[in-house]
Amino acid sequence: MKIHHIGIAVDSLEAAVPVFAKILGCQPKSQETVEEQRVRVALFELENSRIELLEATTPDSPVGRFVAKRGRGIHHLTVTVPNLRAALEQLSGAGVQPLNREPRTGADQKQIAFLDPKTTSGILIELVEEQ
Amino acid sequence: MKIHHIGIAVDSLEAAVPVFAKILGCQPKSQETVEEQRVRVALFELENSRIELLEATTPDSPVGRFVAKRGRGIHHLTVTVPNLRAALEQLSGAGVQPLNREPRTGADQKQIAFLDPKTTSGILIELVEEQ
Repeated sequence: MKIHHIGIAVDSLEAAVPVFAKILGCQPKSQETVEEQRVRVALFELENSRIELLEATTPDSPVGRFVAKRGRGIHHLTVTVPNLRAALEQLSGAGVQPLNREPRTGADQKQIAFLDPKTTSGILIELVEEQ
Repeated sequence: MKIHHIGIAVDSLEAAVPVFAKILGCQPKSQETVEEQRVRVALFELENSRIELLEATTPDSPVGRFVAKRGRGIHHLTVTVPNLRAALEQLSGAGVQPLNREPRTGADQKQIAFLDPKTTSGILIELVEEQ
């Protein structure tokens, strides 16, 4: 199992991207708006994983509510699984529940699901199917 | 540059370790107390990186204060640099400051330094020297 990426909530991509570019020694590979999540995303590719900087486009979006409640910070951790439905079924039987009943299609047409933080010691964890 | 590990603040390792073992599909490689940081650490080794679960041993420790202020959550992100002093000097010149003037010796006798979140868009980032 691998860390697919880490999602970091920031106030402003305009302010945060240059800072992370200095720390990580590279420019973001892409910047885009994901309308469904109401978030602007800057993606940094590292040697072994990825970092996504996330700026809410509206205060009532998932990232906007996170920043309002807790301040800027590391928002979620995404890990790969070889078979998402099988992983969700197995976890569900062990008391770790998905946030939504059905997996969704995320970036790169991959199947994704978030786990309910109430069942993961309070941490927002996303699973992404990757062979 | 690589993600060396992610540090996740939890209330209780006893409660969180079994949950993460289910999600990550493996048991922690080690569990130890780091007296200097007043924290108990459970380390999960993944294919491409590591996850550290952190439980404060006292409320006034760095992780204890984080949990009191913000609740459980992803506490810090650690990235590797080939030469820590050179990296700190370069970042300092670019406005990104270390929390402490001198690097410290961390786990595995590696040189480490935390960056001041005031200069990193509010995110706690640790650098670790790794060739």
